[in-house]
Amino acid sequence: MSDLTDPLFLASKLMACPSVTPKDEGAQDLLESWLKELGFTVHRQTFGEVPNLYATRGEGGKRLCFAGHTDVVPPGKTADWQNDPFEPKVEDGMLKGRGASDMKGAIGAFVAAVARAEDTPPLALLITGDEEGPGLDGTKKMLGWMEEQGHRIDHCLVGEPTSREALGDMMKVGRRGSMNCVVTVTGRQGHVAYPDRAENPIPVAVRIAEALRVLVLDNGYEHFQPSNLELTAITSAETAENVIPAEAALRFNVRFNPTWSGERLLESLHEAIDAAAEGARWSWNPRVSGEAFLNQDEELTVLVQTSVQEVTGKTPEPSTSGGTSDARFISKVCPTVEFGLPGATMHQVDEQVPAKDVEKLTDIYALIIERYGKLTA
Amino acid sequence: MSDLTDPLFLASKLMACPSVTPKDEGAQDLLESWLKELGFTVHRQTFGEVPNLYATRGEGGKRLCFAGHTDVVPPGKTADWQNDPFEPKVEDGMLKGRGASDMKGAIGAFVAAVARAEDTPPLALLITGDEEGPGLDGTKKMLGWMEEQGHRIDHCLVGEPTSREALGDMMKVGRRGSMNCVVTVTGRQGHVAYPDRAENPIPVAVRIAEALRVLVLDNGYEHFQPSNLELTAITSAETAENVIPAEAALRFNVRFNPTWSGERLLESLHEAIDAAAEGARWSWNPRVSGEAFLNQDEELTVLVQTSVQEVTGKTPEPSTSGGTSDARFISKVCPTVEFGLPGATMHQVDEQVPAKDVEKLTDIYALIIERYGKLTA
Ligand SMILES: [Zn+2]
Ligand SMILES: [Zn+2]
Repeated sequence: MSDLTDPLFLASKLMACPSVTPKDEGAQDLLESWLKELGFTVHRQTFGEVPNLYATRGEGGKRLCFAGHTDVVPPGKTADWQNDPFEPKVEDGMLKGRGASDMKGAIGAFVAAVARAEDTPPLALLITGDEEGPGLDGTKKMLGWMEEQGHRIDHCLVGEPTSREALGDMMKVGRRGSMNCVVTVTGRQGHVAYPDRAENPIPVAVRIAEALRVLVLDNGYEHFQPSNLELTAITSAETAENVIPAEAALRFNVRFNPTWSGERLLESLHEAIDAAAEGARWSWNPRVSGEAFLNQDEELTVLVQTSVQEVTGKTPEPSTSGGTSDARFISKVCPTVEFGLPGATMHQVDEQVPAKDVEKLTDIYALIIERYGKLTA
Repeated sequence: MSDLTDPLFLASKLMACPSVTPKDEGAQDLLESWLKELGFTVHRQTFGEVPNLYATRGEGGKRLCFAGHTDVVPPGKTADWQNDPFEPKVEDGMLKGRGASDMKGAIGAFVAAVARAEDTPPLALLITGDEEGPGLDGTKKMLGWMEEQGHRIDHCLVGEPTSREALGDMMKVGRRGSMNCVVTVTGRQGHVAYPDRAENPIPVAVRIAEALRVLVLDNGYEHFQPSNLELTAITSAETAENVIPAEAALRFNVRFNPTWSGERLLESLHEAIDAAAEGARWSWNPRVSGEAFLNQDEELTVLVQTSVQEVTGKTPEPSTSGGTSDARFISKVCPTVEFGLPGATMHQVDEQVPAKDVEKLTDIYALIIERYGKLTA
């Protein structure tokens, strides 16, 4: 099977495509050719300008899906990189280039694991080109399309970089939900010498910000840290130094655990903001970009943990911390966990992972595939 | 003496000069020619790009100074005006054009009052072209120059538009001090999903803003309303939606009564801010642009009040409210009060005052001049 068993070769080929969201630059063509060579039926679906790929192999039994993305975040200033971000190389034992960690390295590892396996259960790959972008035309739309087409998956392993310091120290079994919101307070402009003739929106915005700052949403529980509200911006309309502005606004993000649904959270926040506004005019635009979820399928978690343990000697902590991923969509369809490379340099300049970790991840994915078949047989 | 006794003619001539700070456009040349015709010795002093004028007439006895400015604020969009802002006219009983109220009307009235008087005490006019601007090269510098040159004034009447609804309803006998300040809080940028790895400056800025908002500086007293702190801006460094910014800042203005010196106020604010910062890094740039003052010379106040009363039938309220003026500088040199036209349209589109009020103000200024001589004889 030639080079298809070499994860570093596969990862490097993908990394040479400058597939900054939503561009593809040939990445999914490459993947399609490899998967076809491995006997997969490959479906390509473009939504908006986003390329997506769904591939299956085998029937008769539960289907394990590997999910991920071929798009990468922008490299920033290429000059800041030691090497060209889209000319991947293995140097000093490290696989270097944009996407090494997040997550072309993991795609290479999964394809190589399939290529090496003798006998596999029914498999699928669900790959999007819009995980790092708005995510509207990616995995979410693909799951809808799969349902329409009767493409069913039973468990899902997402290849995001979940390891922290070293390969195997962490896996993700859930994620917090996320919401963003801008609250705008409207007052009336005036001169500072005559505050009675103006309505200053800043003290109102400050009261609201203060109320949100001290708000305790919950205290967390076994699997989840406490929900957190973070103020990310506060602004007032630009005015001369002696002028009270007509408008002030604040922006915040909430990462919430499954004790909250987005809807209940919004109700609670609306109440807190309205009380702090004390009758002043305010408006908001809350957007829940992902509900909180937790994988309830203990067998799936243990399957990944034991496979990781066997290859690395480490038992990955089943974590729910950190940012969101497409797992938030897939978890609505089937039990979903995430395990991948160390993420220390993801989204940064000089993104890189130990080449040895890409090899080990291939071994881990191979074990998971093999054992999944036995587990669900 | 021809037209020099006609305040509307004089005011209109000045208003036809588009003397938007610091431009003069011939306004002070006109004034110089009139004052010379009236027997004044005229000194012209330019500081930076600002033209200033000091004129005296008469010796032997206390000198009454009239102070004011020939500069005006920008007209804004000329198209928003009913008439061209620099083509003054008397229409429907109103003197219309930029500077009618603030304060070419009052300069016209004072010059006409002098021209009409038979016998006057020693007089002076202190006129700047930078009252509406930064004020650095105007009255303040002129007062320094006057001291150097041995030009002494004993009482000062500032012609700013102090009347509110109707001519004579208010005079100013003091002004609050003013300070502006920007407080900057420095944190560390980071992703909202990992607030522990960042230092969010926004909650600190909010705590400081909240502490300043609830701060009671004093409760005011007989002549002064309570000192007031007004938040005029709050901002954070621009970031993407999911990013905690590295910096936040807030701006405020304090109008303070003479219970405070600028220095003591700064000490007090520093303490309040530092306590609210709770150890976070912050810096500020406080600037006291004027100390508070109150005219202590009861005779001067009564002189203006009785003159106004005789012409208008109203006893002007001796107020200390509102914005700052050059009286804050002159009051350090001699007792100073302010009385002028209604200010309802000052700094606005379609600035105008009743033509009759300009006539009446001329009568009031004439009475003040006449009585000042008797009072100080
Ligand atoms: Zn990713
Ligand atoms: Zn003025």
